[in-house]
Amino acid sequence: MKDQVNFERAEAPGDFLGQSGKEDNAVRAETPEEAVVRILKERGLLLTTAESCTGGMVASRIVNVPGASDVFHAGFITYCDKAKRKMLGVSKKTLKKYTAVSAATAAEMAEGAAKRAKADIAVSVTGIAGPDGGTEKFPVGLVFLGCSISGKTEVEELHLNGSRAEIRAQAAELALDLVRKTILRGE
Amino acid sequence: MKDQVNFERAEAPGDFLGQSGKEDNAVRAETPEEAVVRILKERGLLLTTAESCTGGMVASRIVNVPGASDVFHAGFITYCDKAKRKMLGVSKKTLKKYTAVSAATAAEMAEGAAKRAKADIAVSVTGIAGPDGGTEKFPVGLVFLGCSISGKTEVEELHLNGSRAEIRAQAAELALDLVRKTILRGE
Repeated sequence: MKDQVNFERAEAPGDFLGQSGKEDNAVRAETPEEAVVRILKERGLLLTTAESCTGGMVASRIVNVPGASDVFHAGFITYCDKAKRKMLGVSKKTLKKYTAVSAATAAEMAEGAAKRAKADIAVSVTGIAGPDGGTEKFPVGLVFLGCSISGKTEVEELHLNGSRAEIRAQAAELALDLVRKTILRGE
Repeated sequence: MKDQVNFERAEAPGDFLGQSGKEDNAVRAETPEEAVVRILKERGLLLTTAESCTGGMVASRIVNVPGASDVFHAGFITYCDKAKRKMLGVSKKTLKKYTAVSAATAAEMAEGAAKRAKADIAVSVTGIAGPDGGTEKFPVGLVFLGCSISGKTEVEELHLNGSRAEIRAQAAELALDLVRKTILRGE
């Protein structure tokens, strides 16, 4: 676990307090995407993304971290069922039986993305961001995340609240968190 | 040009001032992504995206608009050269001769995306967001946008300033604007 914290440069985080510019950056907390990029770099792992309702937000946050190209080469935005099938290989049967917003689809999205991008780890997001499109069984805010690593896939079911933008942002944040947790849990 | 403005509901925009909630939304300007989704819907056109340095930000802004699924089905995030070749069909020769940050690559990204997603219009973004990786010939902030519609492709060369996040956000904003301009110009 090298290069984990910038704090090491200072006697204590407080040393930088009250200073401006770059020094302030040294004491702010690592963002979820910075944590993910650091953890992937430390382990030499390649990540890919398969996004439906977040529509590229997870990948965009990863790419915002300087040096992301070491750990992220490609991502898939599959907003309709056909794209999930063609670009990620999600089965027609799964989509028909469970719908696009399901644990099964999230799992197949992550597995397909890892395989097609030749990545070590893939994260997927599929859900109903609203404001329309919700039903009793599939309410607005229902989101499934998938994370596939070394052939093992985990799925999380989320029930989020808020506007379309808020639901999407929360889903992206939790997807980044799932990548971090999945890697650390496997060690 | 139906449904262009919500203003029509009010006598004047000022009618809503001081009111809260939904009414306030009626007076704010349309965002670039809302304009793009509206224009695409009015014309029955399907959009796709091919993003390198923006890493999904253009698509994510499109998907944030309710009802985007009518006009956007899939997008490609091709951050490395290999992904640009494999996922979009950018030629090895183009990448070798002009590099990934070039008008030629932006054009081939947009053309490949339109073809592979079976979309009517495709927008591409490739550039150097920094803070590292810039050279005299390829400085940080150099970004090429491509827009392909009905077999015709336009390219814009941008020279942007700011942080990595700022350069990426400006590139995404201008990519959305290019989609709008390209459609309206062709009419």
